[in-house]
Amino acid sequence: MSSALKLGIAGLGNVGTGTVELICAHGDAFPSRTGCGVEIVAVSARDRMKNRAIDISPYTWFDDPVEMASADDVDVFVELIGGEGGVAKAAVEAALKAGKHVVTANKALLANHGVELARLADDNAVALNFEAAVAGGIPAIKTIRESLLANEISRVYGILNGTCNYILTRMQKEERPFAQVLEDAQHAGYAEADPSFDVGGHDTAHKLSLLTTLAFGVETSFDTIYVEGIESISLADIEAADELGYRIKLLGVALRTDSGIEQRVHPTMVPKNTAIAEVDGATNCVAFDGDFSGDIMLIGPGAGAHPTASAVLSDVLDIAKGGVLPPFARRTADLKPYRRARMRAHEGGYYIRLSVYDRPGAFAAIAGRMADEGISLESIVQRRPPSALPGIDAQLDDGTPLPVVMITHKTTEAAIRAALEKIEQEGNVNEKPQMIRIEKL
Amino acid sequence: MSSALKLGIAGLGNVGTGTVELICAHGDAFPSRTGCGVEIVAVSARDRMKNRAIDISPYTWFDDPVEMASADDVDVFVELIGGEGGVAKAAVEAALKAGKHVVTANKALLANHGVELARLADDNAVALNFEAAVAGGIPAIKTIRESLLANEISRVYGILNGTCNYILTRMQKEERPFAQVLEDAQHAGYAEADPSFDVGGHDTAHKLSLLTTLAFGVETSFDTIYVEGIESISLADIEAADELGYRIKLLGVALRTDSGIEQRVHPTMVPKNTAIAEVDGATNCVAFDGDFSGDIMLIGPGAGAHPTASAVLSDVLDIAKGGVLPPFARRTADLKPYRRARMRAHEGGYYIRLSVYDRPGAFAAIAGRMADEGISLESIVQRRPPSALPGIDAQLDDGTPLPVVMITHKTTEAAIRAALEKIEQEGNVNEKPQMIRIEKL
Repeated sequence: MSSALKLGIAGLGNVGTGTVELICAHGDAFPSRTGCGVEIVAVSARDRMKNRAIDISPYTWFDDPVEMASADDVDVFVELIGGEGGVAKAAVEAALKAGKHVVTANKALLANHGVELARLADDNAVALNFEAAVAGGIPAIKTIRESLLANEISRVYGILNGTCNYILTRMQKEERPFAQVLEDAQHAGYAEADPSFDVGGHDTAHKLSLLTTLAFGVETSFDTIYVEGIESISLADIEAADELGYRIKLLGVALRTDSGIEQRVHPTMVPKNTAIAEVDGATNCVAFDGDFSGDIMLIGPGAGAHPTASAVLSDVLDIAKGGVLPPFARRTADLKPYRRARMRAHEGGYYIRLSVYDRPGAFAAIAGRMADEGISLESIVQRRPPSALPGIDAQLDDGTPLPVVMITHKTTEAAIRAALEKIEQEGNVNEKPQMIRIEKL
Repeated sequence: MSSALKLGIAGLGNVGTGTVELICAHGDAFPSRTGCGVEIVAVSARDRMKNRAIDISPYTWFDDPVEMASADDVDVFVELIGGEGGVAKAAVEAALKAGKHVVTANKALLANHGVELARLADDNAVALNFEAAVAGGIPAIKTIRESLLANEISRVYGILNGTCNYILTRMQKEERPFAQVLEDAQHAGYAEADPSFDVGGHDTAHKLSLLTTLAFGVETSFDTIYVEGIESISLADIEAADELGYRIKLLGVALRTDSGIEQRVHPTMVPKNTAIAEVDGATNCVAFDGDFSGDIMLIGPGAGAHPTASAVLSDVLDIAKGGVLPPFARRTADLKPYRRARMRAHEGGYYIRLSVYDRPGAFAAIAGRMADEGISLESIVQRRPPSALPGIDAQLDDGTPLPVVMITHKTTEAAIRAALEKIEQEGNVNEKPQMIRIEKL
């Protein structure tokens, strides 16, 4: 009971600082909760002299985190440096090889080298825990690794990037265009100066690949994921979605299909009367469809120093309790090769927004191309002027482009792409058709 | 690796049968996931000969679950008998005393005797796991016991009873009164023949008391919880709530306040544009406000054979992995006495619906009694005829009772009760005022 787990913390940015703060605030409660205390013995960061909100003088300083990773009195190496390779990877490898447990919040490192590191953890019988790497304070990893362990999971999905959700929420609530809201988000610190990693969907893909490996037991790679960002989402889409009973969210989705695992990141239509539609701002969510558990959804802060520190400590305290679980929810040697379902085989409903030249026969031609591909339409909305419905063609006669929005019944990605390509070629539209997938919840 | 954890399962109703089905379906995957397999060695139920969907012939039969609980080859006693005392309690005690781990789905047993059983588990260094006792397949217990372990939790709340949520959802969506929907629910198997335990809020109170002990580390008792059921909710309330931007849900709420822990179960107004407002039908949710984690919400099936079996297996596999955690998230000896915050000290907004005699001065008198208690009003809606607003008093002149709905700013339970008592005494209303608390999310 008087023993304490000794931590070496590498990286003292927001999350590192938050982690030290948490241990200072609540560390006294840990022995009763885990049978063992937690003690920070060493820290390492780029600049020892930097002005920090925390006092690091009680801890042994290491200039080199790799050296700290294998220091004798460190039981758990906490990697909060970040970056997919470099010193973070070298330090984690050194720690695992030295028989130290590792806790990391580094999704880029895990998305690139997770399985390799998991093997190293297995070989050395130590923990490689990474609750903080996906969706901040939300217990997504533990839910797959432990709570749903007795289930076969058929789908995992979620809102995994706070920046995108913040932008889409503000666009919808304030009726302002993407570029304006992005600029605001950058000023407010919700988006990076170079936002492309977030708004382009790549951050979501990193997190999704970890969830996929955990949920389906396959050795995937994030660069095989189909990725679309939110840059193309216009106010017209957000308004049309609202009218049709949907909200637009950037989702990461991994789905078990007969032809393999489908992994995709894209703006998605979700019905308005659902919990996920109300996950707003920087909040994240992660959902799992388990064959016995049913559909489970977790909602919470997806980032931030304190929520992420809470997740880091959850990993640390698991080690304090004495457990070492396989990093990816089964022996790493039992991970299977990834069989990728082709994106063109994806099945679902689609939202299509077209800017159609207002002339006789234009809409008939468009409807014909959809029919050629066997696509049936659930609804059609021609938004301005409202009087144009239902006799659309009758109104299309002065040559001005008119916005037309369609919702399809279930079809395939291949069919929809073929139809849209022909529609674009035929010249009845004056811009590239917008297409947004609808997710069945 | 070839070793297997040996289970004795007592109770072969829906959940027991679901548990056996799950192990038969996915048991082969367990060794890779936990380092150890799971094997059913013995079962016990009331009637050996009952026609069941599962084949129990491979397992040793026990007429007496208490005897099975201490059988030599049982490692884990799985109690799915139910009931707050009797044979379930005797068997769990026998198992713990014999040094067997216990997994149970029995909320009544735990709400009545949880701390006493937890002491027995501590003394014998075995696990007492009960994920399935609260909110079915939702990992509520693990989230407090593990994921949020490094947090101070300020509030835990949720939709914890599927029957009530099913009834309220159908009332709202179909605009049908409570009694009609309850009858339907009984026919459909969503409500018991005697529904009072569910619709009266007592089932929710059982679950809330477990969450309170876990979240706040206090030795509470469910019979000190303030409980109101949903029987008094009328269609008029549901419609007025909708108009004012709310949904009505039966919530269990436990809140840390300066004067102790406030525990209450009552119909609650939640804003429409929130995830919890969209938790519909028999679905449950549990939410936690942690000081570092932020607000975390879990949504999923709150009952059912398969979701509950998933939770039972999550507990079993935790034992297979080798961990024994304190049942209530800290050493049982460290649980503190419960300091109960008085319900009259509760602070919040209120929805008030009055049936006011349509006569001069009636509304002025009512508004006066609210003012006497220092209660300020956020909005007032007088629903029929719509023309009566804003000059309400001017219209109240033919003596017919008119429905008046008010939303108050934050006030105290004591103030609202005093005001409503005086309003009722003054005789300007023709029925008992309806009062529904608003929860800040």
